[in-house]
Amino acid sequence: MQLKECKGVTFVEGGVCAAKGFLANGIHCGLAHKALTADPDTTTQTSLPPQSGQKRDLAMIFSEKPCAAAAMYTTNKMQAAPLQVTRKHLRDGSARAVIVNSVNANACVADGQEKAEKMCELAAQALSLRPEDILVASTGVIGQSLPIEPIAAAVPELAKGLSHEGNAAAVEAIMTTDTHIKEVAVQFHAGGVTCTLGGMLKGSGMIHPNMATTLTFLTTDCAIESSLLQGALREIVGLTLNRVSVDGDTSTNDMVCILANGEAGNREITKENEDYENFRDALYAVLMNLARMMARDGEGATKLIECLCEGAADDRTAEIVGKSVITSSLFKTMIFGEDANVGRVLCAIGYAPVDVDPSKVDVTISSAKGTLPMCRQGLVLDFSEEKAKAILGEEELLVHLSLGMGGGNAVVWGCDLTYDYVRINGDYRS
Amino acid sequence: MQLKECKGVTFVEGGVCAAKGFLANGIHCGLAHKALTADPDTTTQTSLPPQSGQKRDLAMIFSEKPCAAAAMYTTNKMQAAPLQVTRKHLRDGSARAVIVNSVNANACVADGQEKAEKMCELAAQALSLRPEDILVASTGVIGQSLPIEPIAAAVPELAKGLSHEGNAAAVEAIMTTDTHIKEVAVQFHAGGVTCTLGGMLKGSGMIHPNMATTLTFLTTDCAIESSLLQGALREIVGLTLNRVSVDGDTSTNDMVCILANGEAGNREITKENEDYENFRDALYAVLMNLARMMARDGEGATKLIECLCEGAADDRTAEIVGKSVITSSLFKTMIFGEDANVGRVLCAIGYAPVDVDPSKVDVTISSAKGTLPMCRQGLVLDFSEEKAKAILGEEELLVHLSLGMGGGNAVVWGCDLTYDYVRINGDYRS
Repeated sequence: MQLKECKGVTFVEGGVCAAKGFLANGIHCGLAHKALTADPDTTTQTSLPPQSGQKRDLAMIFSEKPCAAAAMYTTNKMQAAPLQVTRKHLRDGSARAVIVNSVNANACVADGQEKAEKMCELAAQALSLRPEDILVASTGVIGQSLPIEPIAAAVPELAKGLSHEGNAAAVEAIMTTDTHIKEVAVQFHAGGVTCTLGGMLKGSGMIHPNMATTLTFLTTDCAIESSLLQGALREIVGLTLNRVSVDGDTSTNDMVCILANGEAGNREITKENEDYENFRDALYAVLMNLARMMARDGEGATKLIECLCEGAADDRTAEIVGKSVITSSLFKTMIFGEDANVGRVLCAIGYAPVDVDPSKVDVTISSAKGTLPMCRQGLVLDFSEEKAKAILGEEELLVHLSLGMGGGNAVVWGCDLTYDYVRINGDYRS
Repeated sequence: MQLKECKGVTFVEGGVCAAKGFLANGIHCGLAHKALTADPDTTTQTSLPPQSGQKRDLAMIFSEKPCAAAAMYTTNKMQAAPLQVTRKHLRDGSARAVIVNSVNANACVADGQEKAEKMCELAAQALSLRPEDILVASTGVIGQSLPIEPIAAAVPELAKGLSHEGNAAAVEAIMTTDTHIKEVAVQFHAGGVTCTLGGMLKGSGMIHPNMATTLTFLTTDCAIESSLLQGALREIVGLTLNRVSVDGDTSTNDMVCILANGEAGNREITKENEDYENFRDALYAVLMNLARMMARDGEGATKLIECLCEGAADDRTAEIVGKSVITSSLFKTMIFGEDANVGRVLCAIGYAPVDVDPSKVDVTISSAKGTLPMCRQGLVLDFSEEKAKAILGEEELLVHLSLGMGGGNAVVWGCDLTYDYVRINGDYRS
């Protein structure tokens, strides 16, 4: 999937290892409850040969120098134990490493806290750090006690294998039902110095706005104060990860965190100046592209839907209306079926819990194959079914809503609802 | 599907024709854009042979005497034209007949109002009534101009064929993707007289709480003042139809209306006395059973899910938490897959927008095959997968949530999310 260009940044390779002074690794420690699927259409795409034929399930990110750090967490009240431990360890706004497992969410179990703390202790020991320097996250099945033995046995090897080329192994290890890896890194300028910011993300179900959707790990060598880091993260997550919905479900385990080690050598950003703007733009470029990848790789998805809502009373209203459309099951199945049933779009606009004037609503759908005006001033237009079929046949669709009420606008991202979504989630645990 | 017993009422046959003085009919006028499917598993079940092989698409209900009348409408702001016309005709709280078509929703089109008014004029002419005595509704595809000619040609025959045995023809005519007819009638006592209240309902997609979901037509021979009729309808719809969700989509066209002609001979109910209580109980018995039928016949559904949420701070909170669970796509696919993944339930409780204490949450799933405690005080329990499989294999499931916060409770209804939901809606228009 193509990266979307952004002003002021250059895309580079390397994900979480792109920034100076960051190492990563990922290994198979034996938590995996199923082997990689043999279906060539849905096999995980990774640049590494699977380690002894089994998907990696334990990842580590490490900074050679101390980092300012910030994070955001799921708003789900059944918040998983690792997030509570990470929150505690981030009280001082600094961290050095992240340990994360897939397969098991370590959520809604009696020994969750204990296991999450143990993971930090194991990582600290292997890295000669304090447990408070470690952030921890888990993703996978909820409600099963996390076996700590395979992790304890694997952490020394995991730490020993940390390298500047370890991004691909780490990103594989955090995947669950993802079919593609998701990583982006950019370079930008701050204080006359070239800085790098990169990240990796896992999808792809239980994804819905209003929290830091999914597990996302970001690293940068830019020097920036932790309170500004937290502020930038909050703002940009609101414009990117929190504007994606795959299935309307907000997970118990989601977290996004960023480590900034200052290795680029720029003068530390301590106020909202031009350097801060550049940092925010870089963060937007990375998280917006990761958000698009997450939506495109939503469970069972065949299409990425970008919805631009304009002319709303304010940006928040635009976001609510856009999300109402991209979360509608009827709209999502219609996109899967490539059926130009604009009634589904109008219906979802109409039940959004905001003030909308039906007589002012315009709807246009476009793709690389052309542009199809479907509704003007609330009335459905006649259109060529043949042209509609061609436009909807593409893998990337833009749904443009215009509400005619004001200057608010927002972009949100979603995907279609398919047979495979049902298949994947009808039997998620086995 | 079995009717659920309710105190003080006896179930009787006849649907909207069960009450004295009501006639109905349904015919094929030629709006149908597709023939009945040949798939024996999904063929519409009706007690009548299809008229000339084609599904009926135009229905009429008629009262021999003037009626007190009340209605509730969708909260979707893209409200279809027929609802606006019905609202106007109901200003005086009385009506005599209803005309309704399926196939075409008469929504989001320039001539919607004109066509809806024309339908009332045609019905009024055939029945020797005023147009203001007629209520009108439509259901089907949004955004296509309604052809009035087939309706104009058919209304005289439709009116001529009205009979006390016309319920089955009428209920077939209002169906869209429904696979079963949905009708319930009960007898109850008011003022020492036996009264009857019956109704019919169509589902089965674009169904979500917070409006009068679906088209529902109710008739009663009980004499009751129209303001009390409206009050009872609002209250009971809130406990029944508004507690069903099939897909989270709130339609543009949904309406529930009730006609009360007083033919039972009871002294008119003019205050909230015991007779009024009996009337409310009867209305609950009819609408609760119709709500269950609607959920069970949700598009593509294989299971009815009844969710009882207890121990909430108040009833409204209980309803919000219950709906959060039954609308979760991950929960719904898990039920389809008969996979006892209680994490999906806990996750949906956790993101409900209300105050919940995770450490007090209990979850139990039961069916005719037994009861399975799955979570106590927020922690997932061990359970026998074999027993879980047997319980989840049933067609009617009860999910019992206990929040441990107070005395509020609510029952809500939903269904599973299946391959067939995707199939049906991937290509709804053709």
